[in-house]
Amino acid sequence: MTAAVKVAVIGTGLVGSGWAVVFARAGCDVALYDSVPGAAERGREVVAQQLRDLAAHGLIAEAPEAVLGRVSVARDLADALSGAAYAQESTFERLDVKREVFSAIDAAIGPDTLVGSSSSGIPASAYTDHVACRSRCLVAHPVNPPSLAPVVELVPAPWTAPETVRSVRALMEQVGQSPVEMTREIEGFILNRLQGVLLMEAWRLVEEGYATAEDVDRTVKDGLGLRWAFMGPFETIDLNAPGGVADYARRLGPLYRSIAASTAEHKVWDDAVIGTVEAQRRAVLPADGLAERRAWRDRRLMALAAHKKDAEA
Amino acid sequence: MTAAVKVAVIGTGLVGSGWAVVFARAGCDVALYDSVPGAAERGREVVAQQLRDLAAHGLIAEAPEAVLGRVSVARDLADALSGAAYAQESTFERLDVKREVFSAIDAAIGPDTLVGSSSSGIPASAYTDHVACRSRCLVAHPVNPPSLAPVVELVPAPWTAPETVRSVRALMEQVGQSPVEMTREIEGFILNRLQGVLLMEAWRLVEEGYATAEDVDRTVKDGLGLRWAFMGPFETIDLNAPGGVADYARRLGPLYRSIAASTAEHKVWDDAVIGTVEAQRRAVLPADGLAERRAWRDRRLMALAAHKKDAEA
Repeated sequence: MTAAVKVAVIGTGLVGSGWAVVFARAGCDVALYDSVPGAAERGREVVAQQLRDLAAHGLIAEAPEAVLGRVSVARDLADALSGAAYAQESTFERLDVKREVFSAIDAAIGPDTLVGSSSSGIPASAYTDHVACRSRCLVAHPVNPPSLAPVVELVPAPWTAPETVRSVRALMEQVGQSPVEMTREIEGFILNRLQGVLLMEAWRLVEEGYATAEDVDRTVKDGLGLRWAFMGPFETIDLNAPGGVADYARRLGPLYRSIAASTAEHKVWDDAVIGTVEAQRRAVLPADGLAERRAWRDRRLMALAAHKKDAEA
Repeated sequence: MTAAVKVAVIGTGLVGSGWAVVFARAGCDVALYDSVPGAAERGREVVAQQLRDLAAHGLIAEAPEAVLGRVSVARDLADALSGAAYAQESTFERLDVKREVFSAIDAAIGPDTLVGSSSSGIPASAYTDHVACRSRCLVAHPVNPPSLAPVVELVPAPWTAPETVRSVRALMEQVGQSPVEMTREIEGFILNRLQGVLLMEAWRLVEEGYATAEDVDRTVKDGLGLRWAFMGPFETIDLNAPGGVADYARRLGPLYRSIAASTAEHKVWDDAVIGTVEAQRRAVLPADGLAERRAWRDRRLMALAAHKKDAEA
């Protein structure tokens, strides 16, 4: 009989709780740790709620209680890390916080535990340079919630051992996530770089009065974003010209080069346009409706995940 | 008894056939015209096939034959335009072709017909400056196939009458499309500008060896693209910070500004990277598999459209 793999979840806010769901759902034993007293217990309640929601959408095979039975609250950081094959760090995204938590992990970690950081943009080299276990650290950036959006970006620091990347990749595949690998660090990784450049052009179209934020959103959700929910941008253009991607690039290259030239210089993340978009969004959705709309989004993501599971079966 | 609205579809390739489906499905009489002999008849066969596929996914209310009964092949351009409230031009995307077809339309059009061009990037001012009916012309750019991706970008030329935009918008809403309005022209409109900037960064990540094309695609389809299939980029970030979009911009602004600075200069649509991506795509999907994969994409788009219809109900 093989013992279940143990995973430590360090930092049990929304992202950490989501990771606990992913690992426990796949059969791992999960130990929760948060430096704020009571936070891990609250995180376990979030896990319980997420498991009930997943069960309601047919997205877990077992009863929610059975999965939750594999999630425990650790006494302290050393207890969480003890015997863990892997630790997922999901603390606040600020350099000093990350540096401190990696120091604490380093002091308590055993010789065989690997550590992935949920950092959404800061490379691991910025907060693992000083720790003895640094060859066993990397970024493992999820989309929230990881139980519904399976991608995880694996980004090694210069000192991350290739074996660390291989092992974390294998674990992520084993628990049903969809790992992508960067060969080296770049700020924002893949996901937030792609999101960033699209947002910059979106801000600009609103700032210069070409269209409203609502119409920009509609262009994506009722058009551009549909294929991207099940194919990536390269496969999309590969199928959009008779001869594939090179044929597409030949046909559309002049248009896109001309667009590129026109995007070279414009203000980004400017306070004025942020105010404009904020006002347009609040007209559509008042601030006191945000929480309810987030619950709607999560139901839609869950329904989309169930749909994709069916469509891929 | 009200007579059905008549719509002329001019140019009956894949895009024109898709438009015929949209208008006929909504109860309009559709007259097909193509300057190439036999093309309109072939277009009508594509319409018949698309209607059967939609019926199979529960996406039309009537029997396919009943809808097809409203689609006829016109004798000539004047016959197609005669009595039409609206004409959708979907000829080849090349400036000289568009200029010529708008001249021909101008010579045959009645006083009350409006004309939308399916142009995906060239503004209407570039090919309607010389025609007498130019105040009744604009761009009405769809995503292919328009029967599954409802967005349509309405882009007026400087001489397009506001009443033209209003009427075409009302017609598009009436037939179940999702119109967005630009206040004035810009190359690539909204959709292809957003696609263009994302692709440029995607090329660059592959070109500089950060990740493979397949991993870039996976990052989008298993992560970034999921929310964009039912929310736009602004609603996504509006819901991704406790205080809404302005709060998000404050928190993430420094990261995105830093990314922006690093994207200012790099080669785009370079032959070398196109060759790299082409080789990577052909390793995953040989050229002789493109047609089958396109059929898969269309089934997935159809299933996604049915899913969205359910989720929104």
